[in-house]
Amino acid sequence: MWLQREISLRPPGRGFHLITRDVVGELPELGELRVGLLHLFMLHTSASLTLNENASPDVRRDFESYFNEAVPEDAPYWTHTDEGPDDMPAHIKASVLGPSLSLPVADGRLALGTWQGIYLCEHRDRPSGRRVLATLWGEGNAGPEGGEHGPEGQVP
Amino acid sequence: MWLQREISLRPPGRGFHLITRDVVGELPELGELRVGLLHLFMLHTSASLTLNENASPDVRRDFESYFNEAVPEDAPYWTHTDEGPDDMPAHIKASVLGPSLSLPVADGRLALGTWQGIYLCEHRDRPSGRRVLATLWGEGNAGPEGGEHGPEGQVP
Amino acid sequence: MWLQREISLRPPGRGFHLITRDVVGELPELGELRVGLLHLFMLHTSASLTLNENASPDVRRDFESYFNEAVPEDAPYWTHTDEGPDDMPAHIKASVLGPSLSLPVADGRLALGTWQGIYLCEHRDRPSGRRVLATLWGEGNAGPEGGEHGPEGQVP
Repeated sequence: MWLQREISLRPPGRGFHLITRDVVGELPELGELRVGLLHLFMLHTSASLTLNENASPDVRRDFESYFNEAVPEDAPYWTHTDEGPDDMPAHIKASVLGPSLSLPVADGRLALGTWQGIYLCEHRDRPSGRRVLATLWGEGNAGPEGGEHGPEGQVP
Repeated sequence: MWLQREISLRPPGRGFHLITRDVVGELPELGELRVGLLHLFMLHTSASLTLNENASPDVRRDFESYFNEAVPEDAPYWTHTDEGPDDMPAHIKASVLGPSLSLPVADGRLALGTWQGIYLCEHRDRPSGRRVLATLWGEGNAGPEGGEHGPEGQVP
Repeated sequence: MWLQREISLRPPGRGFHLITRDVVGELPELGELRVGLLHLFMLHTSASLTLNENASPDVRRDFESYFNEAVPEDAPYWTHTDEGPDDMPAHIKASVLGPSLSLPVADGRLALGTWQGIYLCEHRDRPSGRRVLATLWGEGNAGPEGGEHGPEGQVP
């Protein structure tokens, strides 16, 4: 089984945003896979995807603080500055965090750890929409009994 | 062919640990694949997986030194500090290095470069066990003659 | 359909180099896939692969400046220094940017965003050749009409 679908996301602003539910909600076919992979691919070079703690909003705020410090907007070595001070740092952050995630699927669910959630990392000040290309493949026929993994697609 | 198996690892402490043999030892079915992929997925948000030099322990020690400097425990901007000074830096390091590795399989072996080894990156001071979900898929029937790649699953 | 092929690249020197055309040119079988994935895997520990802006050479120069600042050659904590001051920073950069890329394939083409290009990130001063193992898999029979995605393998 192969499926490919573009997902449109509208980040509320610069920062790190939890999007696990948005992604899973767009892919009901996940439920048909016994074992497989989900590949999420950001179609932009100034936003990225990562996986991290899904509970505390503090963690996502600290991500934003850290990356602003680690990739400063006022560094003297930037030469690609025509599109504003947030542009070149956005490109760097996008490559450090990476443009894609490959997530295992087990028994019809994303096999994430209990505390893992998908972050959309928006690195520009004024983002418009962001498009993610989802590709899902694997072996079908998840049994009706659900599976050995816990609720909400997470390994307990 | 699809296979999915959870691998339990017990890192001896904070730092970067070579685990290529542990991983390969848990996946004897690698030998049945002519061509495919192995996806290794860390089910935690404060440890990560990477690939780097498999020979000198100095390299792994320098990784620990570098990431401690690059993601300081005493940064003034951390707000998520309830779980100790190593917690938030561990989350950041986990996302910079990434939660997963996708490794090519060729002729029944991991097709790694001569100097490449799998690192378990443990970012917490007092880790308990770490669980990695391995997913293996591809085309079977590796010929009995072994294959064109060299010994120990590495491309010469 | 599964295909695996080693691609030899000769980076002109240390720095970030756009290699999208070189990679696509070595993989004419891309055109036969309706939907699939391309996995590119760097067989070395001092070079890496990333995806970023494919237009302005300024961006690639700024990448080199940033990573030289973020991973300094003269840091006092390096102990693995036998192979020169560029060696240990090269290992770190290779892990921060990562050894592989997984790229979606749609209708016989790499489904990259309009501005996305593949970078070969060469972190050593005197590189010789670099080898990348390409693994391509998916479902065949791209229709002769091309597909819904735009020219040059990019999503418009």
